[in-house]
Amino acid sequence: MTDLQAIVDEIHGKLQSRLGEGKVADYIPQLAHVDPKRFGMAVVTVDGQVHKAGDCDEPFSIQSISKVFTLTLALGKHGETTWNRVGKEPSGSAFNSIVQLEHEEGKPRNPFINAGAIAVSDLVLAGHTPAEAIGEIVRFVRYLAEDETIAIDPAVAKSEEATGYRNFALANFMRSFGKLSHPVEHVLGVYFHHCAIAMTCSQLARSGLFLAANGRNPMTGHTVVSSQRARRINALMLTCGHYDGSGDFAYRVGLPGKSGVGGGILAVAPGKASIAVWSPGLNHNGNSLIGSLALEMFADMTGWSVFGH
Amino acid sequence: MTDLQAIVDEIHGKLQSRLGEGKVADYIPQLAHVDPKRFGMAVVTVDGQVHKAGDCDEPFSIQSISKVFTLTLALGKHGETTWNRVGKEPSGSAFNSIVQLEHEEGKPRNPFINAGAIAVSDLVLAGHTPAEAIGEIVRFVRYLAEDETIAIDPAVAKSEEATGYRNFALANFMRSFGKLSHPVEHVLGVYFHHCAIAMTCSQLARSGLFLAANGRNPMTGHTVVSSQRARRINALMLTCGHYDGSGDFAYRVGLPGKSGVGGGILAVAPGKASIAVWSPGLNHNGNSLIGSLALEMFADMTGWSVFGH
Amino acid sequence: MTDLQAIVDEIHGKLQSRLGEGKVADYIPQLAHVDPKRFGMAVVTVDGQVHKAGDCDEPFSIQSISKVFTLTLALGKHGETTWNRVGKEPSGSAFNSIVQLEHEEGKPRNPFINAGAIAVSDLVLAGHTPAEAIGEIVRFVRYLAEDETIAIDPAVAKSEEATGYRNFALANFMRSFGKLSHPVEHVLGVYFHHCAIAMTCSQLARSGLFLAANGRNPMTGHTVVSSQRARRINALMLTCGHYDGSGDFAYRVGLPGKSGVGGGILAVAPGKASIAVWSPGLNHNGNSLIGSLALEMFADMTGWSVFGH
Amino acid sequence: MTDLQAIVDEIHGKLQSRLGEGKVADYIPQLAHVDPKRFGMAVVTVDGQVHKAGDCDEPFSIQSISKVFTLTLALGKHGETTWNRVGKEPSGSAFNSIVQLEHEEGKPRNPFINAGAIAVSDLVLAGHTPAEAIGEIVRFVRYLAEDETIAIDPAVAKSEEATGYRNFALANFMRSFGKLSHPVEHVLGVYFHHCAIAMTCSQLARSGLFLAANGRNPMTGHTVVSSQRARRINALMLTCGHYDGSGDFAYRVGLPGKSGVGGGILAVAPGKASIAVWSPGLNHNGNSLIGSLALEMFADMTGWSVFGH
Repeated sequence: MTDLQAIVDEIHGKLQSRLGEGKVADYIPQLAHVDPKRFGMAVVTVDGQVHKAGDCDEPFSIQSISKVFTLTLALGKHGETTWNRVGKEPSGSAFNSIVQLEHEEGKPRNPFINAGAIAVSDLVLAGHTPAEAIGEIVRFVRYLAEDETIAIDPAVAKSEEATGYRNFALANFMRSFGKLSHPVEHVLGVYFHHCAIAMTCSQLARSGLFLAANGRNPMTGHTVVSSQRARRINALMLTCGHYDGSGDFAYRVGLPGKSGVGGGILAVAPGKASIAVWSPGLNHNGNSLIGSLALEMFADMTGWSVFGH
Repeated sequence: MTDLQAIVDEIHGKLQSRLGEGKVADYIPQLAHVDPKRFGMAVVTVDGQVHKAGDCDEPFSIQSISKVFTLTLALGKHGETTWNRVGKEPSGSAFNSIVQLEHEEGKPRNPFINAGAIAVSDLVLAGHTPAEAIGEIVRFVRYLAEDETIAIDPAVAKSEEATGYRNFALANFMRSFGKLSHPVEHVLGVYFHHCAIAMTCSQLARSGLFLAANGRNPMTGHTVVSSQRARRINALMLTCGHYDGSGDFAYRVGLPGKSGVGGGILAVAPGKASIAVWSPGLNHNGNSLIGSLALEMFADMTGWSVFGH
Repeated sequence: MTDLQAIVDEIHGKLQSRLGEGKVADYIPQLAHVDPKRFGMAVVTVDGQVHKAGDCDEPFSIQSISKVFTLTLALGKHGETTWNRVGKEPSGSAFNSIVQLEHEEGKPRNPFINAGAIAVSDLVLAGHTPAEAIGEIVRFVRYLAEDETIAIDPAVAKSEEATGYRNFALANFMRSFGKLSHPVEHVLGVYFHHCAIAMTCSQLARSGLFLAANGRNPMTGHTVVSSQRARRINALMLTCGHYDGSGDFAYRVGLPGKSGVGGGILAVAPGKASIAVWSPGLNHNGNSLIGSLALEMFADMTGWSVFGH
Repeated sequence: MTDLQAIVDEIHGKLQSRLGEGKVADYIPQLAHVDPKRFGMAVVTVDGQVHKAGDCDEPFSIQSISKVFTLTLALGKHGETTWNRVGKEPSGSAFNSIVQLEHEEGKPRNPFINAGAIAVSDLVLAGHTPAEAIGEIVRFVRYLAEDETIAIDPAVAKSEEATGYRNFALANFMRSFGKLSHPVEHVLGVYFHHCAIAMTCSQLARSGLFLAANGRNPMTGHTVVSSQRARRINALMLTCGHYDGSGDFAYRVGLPGKSGVGGGILAVAPGKASIAVWSPGLNHNGNSLIGSLALEMFADMTGWSVFGH
């Protein structure tokens, strides 16, 4: 057995000198004021071992990583008809581009770009109030992580809502094509709140474990999704999880992953482990610079790339 | 051990009633006249077993599948500097789109769309004559497949050259940005010829085996590329190998793969096997319709998806 | 002197058999329910003659024609700095396209497409409340037409506001680039209300007379704008006044003009007259089909094309 | 009567201090080596007066101005069916953009962008050899200018052909949509040669006089085109004659005009005069910077803007 703790420690050590690289998201004060030198990493294996390093128990804003959880919920409610409302193809453009939406008449390319996640929020609403839908999402994440303390940071949600003009543009644009079933304000209420969930690396790694274990949470024995659905969510994370840097992440890391602008990345090594890293500085595609490096080192050292070892 | 021959036979049997679905490429007579009901499949495992079904020993035009081999050659000649000339991101548009090229000033998004493969042909030329470069590519494919009979179909190459206005447009466009080092006619000469290589499923599966076996051809013992490079080529195949249907292929099949407009697909199950299928009818993204189905069934039955079983 | 009344009557007569052609705007009930066979025409010459035909005294929703008046106001307040916020080039795309806005970072191409007119509404606001700005626009139009009865149709304004998702998208998109100075709701409040002004052909022709008379209203003697500004507004109407049909309108009619989705067109024959036509059916570019024909006949019969006679 | 010679002299004088501004085209040596301080201007009135200043009798490469003459020829051969092959709308993008061509399936937006002029060259060919078509174009320009000395600069044509990758891309792209009737090399042979015609300002102003005089050359009495066609060509020059600076030229100058990358501009004052200016430095849209200024001053001083005085 690979000594995972030694690997995690080595990565932590080697990256010390580079902490602070990249550009911290600054569009809302709650993200802008995070210490750029923070770094956390947590690995939870399918047989229940936990390996940690750094600030792995400090909560951060998971932002777009939450899109993995809302997609899982939407698939649970709507099954494959989900794909009538959102595509499954990489976007070939920035996370918040509206160009593609015009060319494809309001149907977003995939559930992990902003427009697609807004469509997924609309699907999660499904006739409920925003408060109910938000509650359901939080309960689902708590259930996955087995941790009732996970919560939304209300200041982040409020800031996102106050400055999210681009997302208001995307949602109104989709609405103009008849592609949202609920009022724009409701849909974005859900969207801004699930992006504002705060989690630690340890919690995040646990919450993604079902994707590494064929849909079943090995720590609780609960089946979250079928093995087929777990594979498919992993496939979407690999092809679309890092915006217009998804190809590069697959090339360098070789693991399904989903990043957030708060500096977190959730990665999945199918059959092996769920991994969460956090480091606030972002690369030019909006993905954690140091977090991507940590995962590249991790995949190299473990030989867990899905593409061979 | 899974009974692979039984799996291959079952797939062949189940798809009998659907042969002929899809639309055969008709832009040149040599492709248009192929019997749409042909179907072949070959699996070569990393321990040397071969499993076959249908028209697996009938040669067909591999077309864009050849881009995997030319990329491998270009990486051998130029290493990671290859990526100065071509990107590694999914394109988010059709295989022959020129729009992205204008927005990104002549640098194609990835080596598997037409523009990217033309850039790769330019890299393979590297100061040689077109005839020398074409010879090198053919020799490389023969070496991979251990089969000296593999050859270019000159009628296909000639037809491609006579009707390839879109490719002439792409190449001249890149040239206008100073992104080709050789004359357009030379570069396209190489491109049209490597796309015109004819192979059987059996040959094709053998030629891709190094990608399933960490860069080493287990049948000859030759190391073709490093294990890292094999992983990386697999990653590119998974994110970009099926044009604007790459996300869907990853979602349904979960294996790195590269399709050609002749109806072939080469897929790689890392650590397990190389698989080639052929069926001429194409889906709306230009990928073999029945071939994709065969691989989806194969991944389901073997549990070999890279995303979990 | 040309017998203008005879010309107007002849046009009215010849078009009788074609009334009802085209497609009436149906995105709000107030426009959808207009009788498609209505036709009105009014010509006011710079020496004060008035020539009329058909339903020339029935009010209709002037919609985008109002953009000529708000642009005139914005230029009065901000002079040439107006062009820091909006361009003066034809758009080469549909009236409500958002693609160009993304490529040019929130600066609309011209003041007559929706995005540009929204930017102009923002300029007209200039620190005032929406009610004040709306009041100013209505007073300006009344002053131009010398008619205190001109008013906004509140039902139209309300319907536009309730269904204007695309305009909300455009405004939020510009706001995300920092290109609006006032809250989106305020800016769109102004925009939706000025588009809902109702006028008759007679009123509209009078209100545009200053553009035909070098900036001076010959009926009141008031100088509205300088002769240079009048020329420039005319130039913008000619190059940009009919969305993606501006080139065709210039080709066929040869007069500066601005259309509205309510079926109205205001045209200017510099030095000669101001002409208003109304017929609700639209062509595929969203301009009045019969109204364009009427103006083409008018320009042919008068020899008043700006491009020669 | 306005003292036109005094106006021309005043413009020449006032612009002396600014000669050399702008960027001379440098993509071929024949253009790059032109003295950036050259300035010529010629005005020919419809009653036969000629007014000149500066280097008005020095030949320069008319480049895209030739597109006015080839369009006139194509309309003569094909009438209004010309518009099945090329549009009449401003492009909203750069002169050599290929993006629009992909979105509109190979039909260029207007005859004055490169793609559109290439389509027009194809129409002028009309079954003839390139040499015959080129001969016809040159004879037509000589006939318009009444000057048998006008000729193509063969070194310019050759350089254009050797470096015109972008135009080869555009032509092949249109060919791929079936939108060219002749071989790409033939069409571009015609295109590169007519762009290489060399003329002086005096010759150019005479050759455009028919457009100022309702289609009839007042110096010879020959009817070149109908008055309707003259108006329509003028309309196209106004909306599309200065690439993505057409709106600005209309706004500032208010005359139909067509620019060339050699620094020339042909402008038309309908009913008044034909004006040619030449100054090699270009603005960011590729139009003569000083030439545009000269025409702006000229329109201001004469009051000849088509939009009022």
